[in-house]
Amino acid sequence: MIEEKLESLGILLPTPPKPAGSYIPVVRTGNLVFVSGQIPMKDGQVQFKGQVPTTISVEDAQKAARLCIINVLAQLKVELGTLDKISRIVRVSGFVNSSSEFYEQPKIINTASDLLFEIFGERAKHSRIAVGVASLPLNSAVEIDLIAETT
Amino acid sequence: MIEEKLESLGILLPTPPKPAGSYIPVVRTGNLVFVSGQIPMKDGQVQFKGQVPTTISVEDAQKAARLCIINVLAQLKVELGTLDKISRIVRVSGFVNSSSEFYEQPKIINTASDLLFEIFGERAKHSRIAVGVASLPLNSAVEIDLIAETT
Amino acid sequence: MIEEKLESLGILLPTPPKPAGSYIPVVRTGNLVFVSGQIPMKDGQVQFKGQVPTTISVEDAQKAARLCIINVLAQLKVELGTLDKISRIVRVSGFVNSSSEFYEQPKIINTASDLLFEIFGERAKHSRIAVGVASLPLNSAVEIDLIAETT
Repeated sequence: MIEEKLESLGILLPTPPKPAGSYIPVVRTGNLVFVSGQIPMKDGQVQFKGQVPTTISVEDAQKAARLCIINVLAQLKVELGTLDKISRIVRVSGFVNSSSEFYEQPKIINTASDLLFEIFGERAKHSRIAVGVASLPLNSAVEIDLIAETT
Repeated sequence: MIEEKLESLGILLPTPPKPAGSYIPVVRTGNLVFVSGQIPMKDGQVQFKGQVPTTISVEDAQKAARLCIINVLAQLKVELGTLDKISRIVRVSGFVNSSSEFYEQPKIINTASDLLFEIFGERAKHSRIAVGVASLPLNSAVEIDLIAETT
Repeated sequence: MIEEKLESLGILLPTPPKPAGSYIPVVRTGNLVFVSGQIPMKDGQVQFKGQVPTTISVEDAQKAARLCIINVLAQLKVELGTLDKISRIVRVSGFVNSSSEFYEQPKIINTASDLLFEIFGERAKHSRIAVGVASLPLNSAVEIDLIAETT
């Protein structure tokens, strides 16, 4: 049970943030679910803002990536009822608010990937992109979206 | 009928722009259609160029996003014959040519999302990403690509 | 036979690079395969680094795009056993490490698209996005990911 795994990791899924725009958090088509880009929002506030490494550190951006994934999972739980319906994480896209001299986007998005492995084990084995972008909504340090396969 | 809806909104779908490269505008696989990134091209010219907000305003970038979606729909109409075959908008990806201090990408891509809702109603409920990028083809202010589900 | 076509083009698929992070190179779901973002890595080193056009030329970035696609194909061959199982290239996403004044991302990603056409013919007809990003992992000039359909 994924929910028990989350509990054992001390992760409490929040009420997920509302979309910052005219769209919805999750769309299902066939047995794929597309999760909208999640930012490091908690209690209605972006917790990790800025550009790596000029105005936010790598360590804090890693925490941002972790929070993005927790929001992804919170959105999926609301949509699916239980995360046990997820048979595979298919794709993770990680966008890091980066200076043009910062080249360690994988180090930041790894925090997201690692958390998925901790939670989902083999089912977490995903493909991924990681890129550095000029800016992100609400000055978020990281934005992550995900495609999963459901049973 | 989506075509009647477009007419009532005063939207005339143009002959869609040709790809600015060696690819095609729309690919179908199973019941998904992938539309290539569309830029705010009209009559063979990019109508809205520049970086938000330094060389183009938020308002004009919103017009750019709207034009991108009109081009997406024009491409889909050519491919599908009729937009009535679209059962669901699955994913919208919005790339905004942004300065590193511009954080309102959602405000710009909302114009695209809102237009989809006006046209497709419930079927428009899509997942979305919105990011700020360093630059776009032909200095476009916005690029939007889309995945839809067909009947 | 795609392998014979590769041979006739003088392309030898390398042992593909390992992911620079906690993810896997290819995920299959249904008859779609998602390939992780590939960078211009060869023999364990990024061959084409920098920002276009400030620290790397358009010509070298084109070579980078070509190498990215070769790595995509190398990953697919490992996963599928043979590239003949690919019935269609569905989507190519090209991220170009760009200055904010560089607008010719299509010219660079065309090199990738053109190579796909040379190799796969009609089956190469793909949808595409091309954007300019602030930075890429390991200072790569280009990152390309791909979705394909398999038989």
